[in-house]
Amino acid sequence: MTILLRNARLATLAPGLPGPGIVESGAVLIEGDRIAFAGEERDLAAPSGARVVDCEGRWITPGLIDCHTHIVHAGNRAKEFEMRLAGASYEEIARAGGGIVSSVRQVREASEADLIAESLPRLDALLAEGVTTIEMKSGYGLTVDDEVKMLRAARALARQRPVGLSTTYLGAHATPADYKGRNGDFIRDVVLPGLQAAHGEGLVDAVDGFCEGIAFSPEEMRIVFDAAKALGLPVKLHADQLSNLHGAALAAEYGALSADHLEYTDDEGAAAMTKAGTVAVLLPGAYYFIRETKRPPVDLFRKHATKMALATDNNPGTSPLTSLLLTMNMGATLFHLTIEECLAGVTREAARALGRLDSIGTIEAGKRADLAIWDIESPAELVYRIGFNPLHQRIWSGFLPEDKA
Amino acid sequence: MTILLRNARLATLAPGLPGPGIVESGAVLIEGDRIAFAGEERDLAAPSGARVVDCEGRWITPGLIDCHTHIVHAGNRAKEFEMRLAGASYEEIARAGGGIVSSVRQVREASEADLIAESLPRLDALLAEGVTTIEMKSGYGLTVDDEVKMLRAARALARQRPVGLSTTYLGAHATPADYKGRNGDFIRDVVLPGLQAAHGEGLVDAVDGFCEGIAFSPEEMRIVFDAAKALGLPVKLHADQLSNLHGAALAAEYGALSADHLEYTDDEGAAAMTKAGTVAVLLPGAYYFIRETKRPPVDLFRKHATKMALATDNNPGTSPLTSLLLTMNMGATLFHLTIEECLAGVTREAARALGRLDSIGTIEAGKRADLAIWDIESPAELVYRIGFNPLHQRIWSGFLPEDKA
Ligand SMILES: [Zn+2]
Ligand SMILES: [Zn+2]
Repeated sequence: MTILLRNARLATLAPGLPGPGIVESGAVLIEGDRIAFAGEERDLAAPSGARVVDCEGRWITPGLIDCHTHIVHAGNRAKEFEMRLAGASYEEIARAGGGIVSSVRQVREASEADLIAESLPRLDALLAEGVTTIEMKSGYGLTVDDEVKMLRAARALARQRPVGLSTTYLGAHATPADYKGRNGDFIRDVVLPGLQAAHGEGLVDAVDGFCEGIAFSPEEMRIVFDAAKALGLPVKLHADQLSNLHGAALAAEYGALSADHLEYTDDEGAAAMTKAGTVAVLLPGAYYFIRETKRPPVDLFRKHATKMALATDNNPGTSPLTSLLLTMNMGATLFHLTIEECLAGVTREAARALGRLDSIGTIEAGKRADLAIWDIESPAELVYRIGFNPLHQRIWSGFLPEDKA
Repeated sequence: MTILLRNARLATLAPGLPGPGIVESGAVLIEGDRIAFAGEERDLAAPSGARVVDCEGRWITPGLIDCHTHIVHAGNRAKEFEMRLAGASYEEIARAGGGIVSSVRQVREASEADLIAESLPRLDALLAEGVTTIEMKSGYGLTVDDEVKMLRAARALARQRPVGLSTTYLGAHATPADYKGRNGDFIRDVVLPGLQAAHGEGLVDAVDGFCEGIAFSPEEMRIVFDAAKALGLPVKLHADQLSNLHGAALAAEYGALSADHLEYTDDEGAAAMTKAGTVAVLLPGAYYFIRETKRPPVDLFRKHATKMALATDNNPGTSPLTSLLLTMNMGATLFHLTIEECLAGVTREAARALGRLDSIGTIEAGKRADLAIWDIESPAELVYRIGFNPLHQRIWSGFLPEDKA
């Protein structure tokens, strides 16, 4: 099956072109699941027999990539949000059964089918905005079986929808109540055996952890990262969100794909990330929702040319956000990113953060045909609008649905 | 036509019920375009012949009301946003043709049909989230003919969709270039004649102005308000957004329906509003987008029991926001409103801000049957989620579309 998208404007995000990889009079040729050509329409000799789609001047971008989500979960924490707004302290919320333990309890009680059914509407909200690849983490099970269950649910979700998936094992997300104060025992009894089990089923694309005073220390994370390395798995890290434990530097030391959050990362951390090729994944939804006031050091990342991605961090406790378009606006409004940084952050750099820039993230020949076609006058509109979805059509792996009515 | 919505949970927003007017085992009876009954299902003897809809435990709220928008406009200001993010000063943006003058130019160049076509997708985005009444302002024409054109477009938009409308004449929005430094002349030559002309066509439900150092002084607003009063039209005011010119008190003195923005309103202003029954319309989208740091004095409004509404302020320059659900989340997250204040702010208090609480804004017998049915477990979820639309069905004026597939 060959498809020619013609009469389009392209924001390819490919290097060597102006701004976000602009081609003003562009065409994209899709052969099977791959991009065979992307560039000026006049440079293409269209093959006979191709299905021709006139894009009527619309813009095409790479399909969007949400490279950091906890979208597989059960229940929500609206009640806790309500209590917080009514003035309840974190202690009162915890006494009422709130906090991460409530998500852990609900995930443990949920079957794999429950997890799929509850997560599907969230996934659909992202897909409706042009997302073609998503990362999903475990981390609310915190037993071997429940962590594996979460990752199985992630794989099942991606089979039910036309979307690319990266799964991340996040056993070191929080310490459950029965291991309180015994992080070492929890890592030995649950995190490492869970990793082995999940990896044994082929469910792990990368290994993550939450390095923070309220979670795991850098020394504890080293144990998990060493185990990941022994299995040949790449790592990433929730780092420096609430304080500077030098998580960014730790991630870089392990050649991590990404370090995520990074509000408190310092100059040395940014430099180390750049040297290691570790992407800075910024999560403005969480910053916004928990009313954080310290912004991640975007100027340091620019100074060191650290690559920056943006993601929803969709999760029930600190970022109940299911819009990657809004995430871009938050990146610009709250973190002062430029339009081009925002666009790259949910395409090219998000692909890099998943270790998949070779196959997705830009519109270039040879890559998977993951595209989004938009009813906009300029790519900046995707960042500028708030709560508006101008998606005309989403193409995943060369699959072109019928035109919208 | 009689419709019975049964097996529902109601957040009626009606007084005398717990929280946001909760009825746990509720039913709503619709006769024609009116609510004939709303309350406990067991208290209703269902009439024979009614079409019965089983709501399967879903929540029903009043249809949402967006009581402050500039949704009728042409073009967008994404380019200006891009320049600002790239570090351009306001002066550089102005020299490049940006700022409100660019919206004025584009509205003047647009035909009524252009305005309708460009505004319809924005209106549809709001309706898709359960909005059943919307306010639309003029204010980018700034000539007699162009102000009238904007209000005609507003009326046409509301005829093309099942939605209630309030139109607001906002001739005193900004001073166009040819009247720079001559506000008095502009009011005499354009604002007052435009009001007469628009009112003469029955296009004006209320009269508004922008009272600010960069716009119109309190003394200038008095001239406009006196003209409105002479025509028997209610007034409202963009007040105290960037500085405290005592606009809230001025609005209260004229018995205004609402004073809007109010970041810099003081204790006296809040007290005066309460005494006059003037609603405080809070606009977190603009606060967010222009990176304002001074929050409106919610504690003062609570102290004085000033009624608070929430609206999108949809406009191309400072709030390109088309989600009233997200506006609620911003009200909670950015302005620290409670769940109940947010829900009331886009229903009951928004109706009050339009002077229409007698006919819309709560689920009570005798009111227009404007309802939203939601796939949620608790009303708090409507405020908690970010970028997610759980609307199951929207009912306007008793009109029930076929169930969603
Ligand atoms: Zn996370
Ligand atoms: Zn306004």
